[in-house]
Amino acid sequence: MNDLLRKDAETIIRKAIDAVTPAYAVEKALKRRAFPGKVYLVAAGKAAWKMAEAAARSMGDTLTAGVVVTKYGHAEHPLPKITCYEGGHPVPDEQGVKGTQAALELTRDLQRSDTVLFLLSGGGSALFEKPLIPLTELQSITDQMLAAGCDIVEINTVRKRLSGVKGGKFAAWCAPAHVISIVLSDVLGDPLDMIASGPTVPDRSTCEQALEVICRYHIQISPQAEDCLRKETPKALPDAEAQIIGSVRQLARAAADASQALGYTPVLLTDQLCCEAKDAGSFLGSILKTHANQGQKTAFLAGGETVVHVSGNGLGGRNQEMALAAAQGIAGIQNAAVICVGSDGTDGPTDAAGGYVDGDTLAALAEKGLSYASMMENHDAYHALEAVGGLIKTGPTGTNVNDIAVGLIGA
Amino acid sequence: MNDLLRKDAETIIRKAIDAVTPAYAVEKALKRRAFPGKVYLVAAGKAAWKMAEAAARSMGDTLTAGVVVTKYGHAEHPLPKITCYEGGHPVPDEQGVKGTQAALELTRDLQRSDTVLFLLSGGGSALFEKPLIPLTELQSITDQMLAAGCDIVEINTVRKRLSGVKGGKFAAWCAPAHVISIVLSDVLGDPLDMIASGPTVPDRSTCEQALEVICRYHIQISPQAEDCLRKETPKALPDAEAQIIGSVRQLARAAADASQALGYTPVLLTDQLCCEAKDAGSFLGSILKTHANQGQKTAFLAGGETVVHVSGNGLGGRNQEMALAAAQGIAGIQNAAVICVGSDGTDGPTDAAGGYVDGDTLAALAEKGLSYASMMENHDAYHALEAVGGLIKTGPTGTNVNDIAVGLIGA
Repeated sequence: MNDLLRKDAETIIRKAIDAVTPAYAVEKALKRRAFPGKVYLVAAGKAAWKMAEAAARSMGDTLTAGVVVTKYGHAEHPLPKITCYEGGHPVPDEQGVKGTQAALELTRDLQRSDTVLFLLSGGGSALFEKPLIPLTELQSITDQMLAAGCDIVEINTVRKRLSGVKGGKFAAWCAPAHVISIVLSDVLGDPLDMIASGPTVPDRSTCEQALEVICRYHIQISPQAEDCLRKETPKALPDAEAQIIGSVRQLARAAADASQALGYTPVLLTDQLCCEAKDAGSFLGSILKTHANQGQKTAFLAGGETVVHVSGNGLGGRNQEMALAAAQGIAGIQNAAVICVGSDGTDGPTDAAGGYVDGDTLAALAEKGLSYASMMENHDAYHALEAVGGLIKTGPTGTNVNDIAVGLIGA
Repeated sequence: MNDLLRKDAETIIRKAIDAVTPAYAVEKALKRRAFPGKVYLVAAGKAAWKMAEAAARSMGDTLTAGVVVTKYGHAEHPLPKITCYEGGHPVPDEQGVKGTQAALELTRDLQRSDTVLFLLSGGGSALFEKPLIPLTELQSITDQMLAAGCDIVEINTVRKRLSGVKGGKFAAWCAPAHVISIVLSDVLGDPLDMIASGPTVPDRSTCEQALEVICRYHIQISPQAEDCLRKETPKALPDAEAQIIGSVRQLARAAADASQALGYTPVLLTDQLCCEAKDAGSFLGSILKTHANQGQKTAFLAGGETVVHVSGNGLGGRNQEMALAAAQGIAGIQNAAVICVGSDGTDGPTDAAGGYVDGDTLAALAEKGLSYASMMENHDAYHALEAVGGLIKTGPTGTNVNDIAVGLIGA
């Protein structure tokens, strides 16, 4: 193994993840912000507690009161002036609804001089919810749409209308107060109206579109649900502003900055990678093979979230598989390496965050008597990487902004 | 459709292919070459006739005599001083062996001052062959190795020893004459000893390795074949030189040059792309999506040869599929386009060389009532592209150096 490249690769990954931690990102966003009146904090999502903690620390006495709605087990300890609720994810439950209701109570009858600081992160869709129909019917409609093959835009077009907070309705509720949304995005491309179905963002979809989805896919709904679908969502929210403070875009750019600091010329390939993991790895490997041995230290960055179509009984995750797939292209090249990690510190059903490979990986596997081809075939990247010391373990990072892959060419 | 991007894309492709035509490449390679004594030309492969024609034209009276061995239907008309043979491809036959024997007669008992100009192109492995065992046993051994899952290196290690011309033996036969090999490569990475099993290149494999392959995979061979496997191949050929004059590397670099001439900043991603076509397209689409709308005209280049694991009953080829797969990532982006073509002018079992897509492609498909998802699923890129005017048809180009994909971001 190339110890120098390994060290650089891990440094780049660590610095990239550090730049998108909830605490770092929230503090950066709140710096030099002034609030004229009362400030109410509402935080929803898997990183809600960490975002709220950072905001509370940053704002001190400026904060009036707050509500956090996060996933079970994610509220680490009580926070002053803030009430913490834990609820179900990915399937919403009554506890999440209770927390959301508390957020609505907190923001009832606000003044124009007041501010609502809305901290949103992945998982907010399930955790921040006030269903306008029984939860069981909401779940049934969602299940029907998934089974019928609806895409995420179609599902959200319907769900925004079955919710009392989604599709801009939470910001409308807070009016005339000013609403500042600070968003940690886990959706590629950062579409603000899609992240948790945009509680504070004007909705571009229409009732007509929602009803058409129900009709086209033959979704069974109650008369009560149909009434909801006929009520239009807010199309303009002049007092609401939203800012993405952390996403795979920042993750990839921070990785580029960290690469540059170590003397690599950074080449940002994409921050919206979404293809099959093994082919993404092969593509990245072929890029490195083409550029290796040209005397130029270069770092190729690709952020996003690949997919794995699992077969066989191997153990792994998309990042481990992408890294292992890249190993073939760079086999035998002394100054090339690839590292792929999930920013949340987990990758598939494993204790690893991702994987590292370099020009020696294939030979190391062969030396252990392991077949690269059959372990790839069996999606067993975990055991392959484990055998050659290529697993990357970070533990939970407290953030979740998709994945980052870095291909390094050393001097 | 974006007519300006379409025009640029087609111009880039045309110029790239022009730079790797046999005629252009051979003429460039022979320019300013001097030959002290007699010059014997031997050309083998699918482009052999075109390469020989260009060499004959370029050399005029300097040429002493020549032999061409090409595929049936590929010798366009008689050439002065050159005897043309046509043989079987991809399975070698007696006619190819007859042509090869004529090349050996032509180069018998040469002098040190003589030169053999060896013009090699794709298909040379089957067309340039003098089997040391009966052709039927050679085919049986090849079939057994393929069925047993041997890789191309293992197959060539064995086949070099069963041949009287492969593995450097043709150059050894020509000694003490000087052998100049001019190679049009269709193998990614241009490994000279792998292209047609390297008739004029020192062989790095050993008898021990060949016998181990036979033993490990339980290949049935005759005592005569075993004798061949025990005879070592040439390890040094001081009078032989070889030069790749055209390959996907030149194709990709020519595409970069052509992009630059049109005002695009070229970014060469790779010249060794080899992953699944649809995922390569998705990756390229995500690269364009990330870099679009930044006011910089950019061309991302990827050369290589992707693969398609076919299912369904659709019609297409790897280039058409890669292009269509890229359409999703750039959907709605007004200044992004992708073109993918096979340099030989054919792509899969179709009359197209590849495909073109841009930001309008998905909307155009929907307007025709066609489902993008199901046509991708069914590997029916031909009909999808045909419906929206996205097929690229060049006709046969006379060269074969893998494929080129270009992703353009306009101003």
